[in-house]
Amino acid sequence: MTETASRPTLEAVAARAGVSRATVSRVVNGGEGVREPLVERVRRAVEELGYVPNQAARSLVTRRHDAVAVVIAEPETRVFADPFFALQLRGISKELTAHDSQLVLLLTEGRDDHARVGRYLAGGHVDGALVFSLHLDDPLPGLIHGAGVPTVFGGRPGWGDGTRGIAYVDSDNRGGARDAVRHLAGLGRTRIGHITGPLDQTSAVDRLDGFRDVMVDADPRLIAEGDFTPAGGERAMRELLDRCPDLDAVFAANDLTASGALRALREHGRSVPGDVAVVGFDDMLPVAEQTDPPLTTVRQDIEEMGRLMARLLLRGLRSRDRAEPGVGGTPSSVVLPTTLVRRASA
Amino acid sequence: MTETASRPTLEAVAARAGVSRATVSRVVNGGEGVREPLVERVRRAVEELGYVPNQAARSLVTRRHDAVAVVIAEPETRVFADPFFALQLRGISKELTAHDSQLVLLLTEGRDDHARVGRYLAGGHVDGALVFSLHLDDPLPGLIHGAGVPTVFGGRPGWGDGTRGIAYVDSDNRGGARDAVRHLAGLGRTRIGHITGPLDQTSAVDRLDGFRDVMVDADPRLIAEGDFTPAGGERAMRELLDRCPDLDAVFAANDLTASGALRALREHGRSVPGDVAVVGFDDMLPVAEQTDPPLTTVRQDIEEMGRLMARLLLRGLRSRDRAEPGVGGTPSSVVLPTTLVRRASA
Repeated sequence: MTETASRPTLEAVAARAGVSRATVSRVVNGGEGVREPLVERVRRAVEELGYVPNQAARSLVTRRHDAVAVVIAEPETRVFADPFFALQLRGISKELTAHDSQLVLLLTEGRDDHARVGRYLAGGHVDGALVFSLHLDDPLPGLIHGAGVPTVFGGRPGWGDGTRGIAYVDSDNRGGARDAVRHLAGLGRTRIGHITGPLDQTSAVDRLDGFRDVMVDADPRLIAEGDFTPAGGERAMRELLDRCPDLDAVFAANDLTASGALRALREHGRSVPGDVAVVGFDDMLPVAEQTDPPLTTVRQDIEEMGRLMARLLLRGLRSRDRAEPGVGGTPSSVVLPTTLVRRASA
Repeated sequence: MTETASRPTLEAVAARAGVSRATVSRVVNGGEGVREPLVERVRRAVEELGYVPNQAARSLVTRRHDAVAVVIAEPETRVFADPFFALQLRGISKELTAHDSQLVLLLTEGRDDHARVGRYLAGGHVDGALVFSLHLDDPLPGLIHGAGVPTVFGGRPGWGDGTRGIAYVDSDNRGGARDAVRHLAGLGRTRIGHITGPLDQTSAVDRLDGFRDVMVDADPRLIAEGDFTPAGGERAMRELLDRCPDLDAVFAANDLTASGALRALREHGRSVPGDVAVVGFDDMLPVAEQTDPPLTTVRQDIEEMGRLMARLLLRGLRSRDRAEPGVGGTPSSVVLPTTLVRRASA
């Protein structure tokens, strides 16, 4: 390890400035109740010695860290493989940086490590947390609740009535899915299949509900479960073709799933959109433009979702600091609209 | 924001256990000097109330956080665009998880935010730091030194003599580059060009030095500066073809650079390896296998580098805790060997 510098202490600053420890401490934590000439003397001593206040000690007083944790309830391998997370982080990073708050991304190998994440959140290292990609049986929400750290979720959480006292940012997954399926029906397609996302996530459940809103009496064999990955989409598409060879359209729960479905369709000699029309979800670039053919898809603004999550959290923290009434108890959530983007696949 | 649970306090635990605050505090921080029946009573009260010790307070006593910061001296956009970082993080994540230490990735928008990273590191939130992709004029090393946090670097740092008192993990960049260029010379190529990485990074400088070790009197027009990205490789390759149309081989400083160079060569109607042989560096998969033609390249084990960085840091922390003599003062660094991997491009 690199040799660590011995850091100047509070005592050293007090000695240099010729004041008491308590005076230095008050100045470092805001200077209230200290006369200006003394403040000036302490500030000069702090500068001369290169004193960095011990934030663990300081945060006991101020209870602010100027840092926000981001927790993605997926193993780090998936965080880096799925561009969805990079986009959401981009929005979060921009917003936090604009408010000089440090983005602290807590990576794990999987949900076995979530107890450790809970400990870090409880440990007084961050002002709040942004949590996304939750799965139904994940222990994280309970751990976060126990940690008592202000939190905004990405995507509607799936427990309780899913709204009371919980702040989240989501897209209109159900409405977007309805638009996708109506578009396919509008093209004259009648045997429309659906490849879902992992059904322990509300985004996947909501898109399935949207599909069913339009295809009220859908043949259950036209629905296959995927997992938001290209490999899962490919596997589910093969299943659908096997069960329903006469299928003439597919709504895939996201663009990565659609890209896998396109591979399976090509492999089975089906033309797109001639034999089978395909619609995705996300409008994830460059994926959606680089598939063959380019994807018709439901656009959600993923980066904006990240930005809004951070904004909602920071606003809540400010309100709490000013002790504004009501904000802690009646958090607002945001559901963003989606739009259909037409390309060649449907 | 989500309403936060009111956390049980130390006082509540003391009341429930029928002991003093000081006793609870001693038990929570290790229990030394407290009689066993009292320890048992406090433990039961902690469990019944779901008390989570305030780690900011506790860490003032124990000075351990079971968390390690990772800082990549690049904007978050590049962290997610270049698979090099995902691989290094994978190695780090596996090693830290095996030791139940939390990976805390500090993301930034760029070097303007490094002062904030320095504050977080100084703030007593982590036991140590792993820092990589440093650039020569980066303020981070100074900030880290000031923060007094044990650190292991990825890649040889470029300041001072680059070794004294500084622990790092690196690959044999210079030796690997020599192997690459000797391989091209062994194929009978005589007009061998080099596209460098950003020359404010030691890995790029070391690879350029390796190139020069073999091509002692290289025509300076055969060297063009890239930036480790495909776009930079494409631009530099065009420059080289413009200046030296008779060039018959190129050593690119990494595989992403080589992939861009291949695009420029194709655009100029040069066949690979017929007209121009190409060698990369990294053996980054799937990139190196998916280029057309697949890349001959110098393999470095990036994931292993990450693992070793974490191992070196954790070992140093343990030694310090046991106050073993000498370890803090004489850190060991590791330089990993590289191997040439032959595919179709040279």
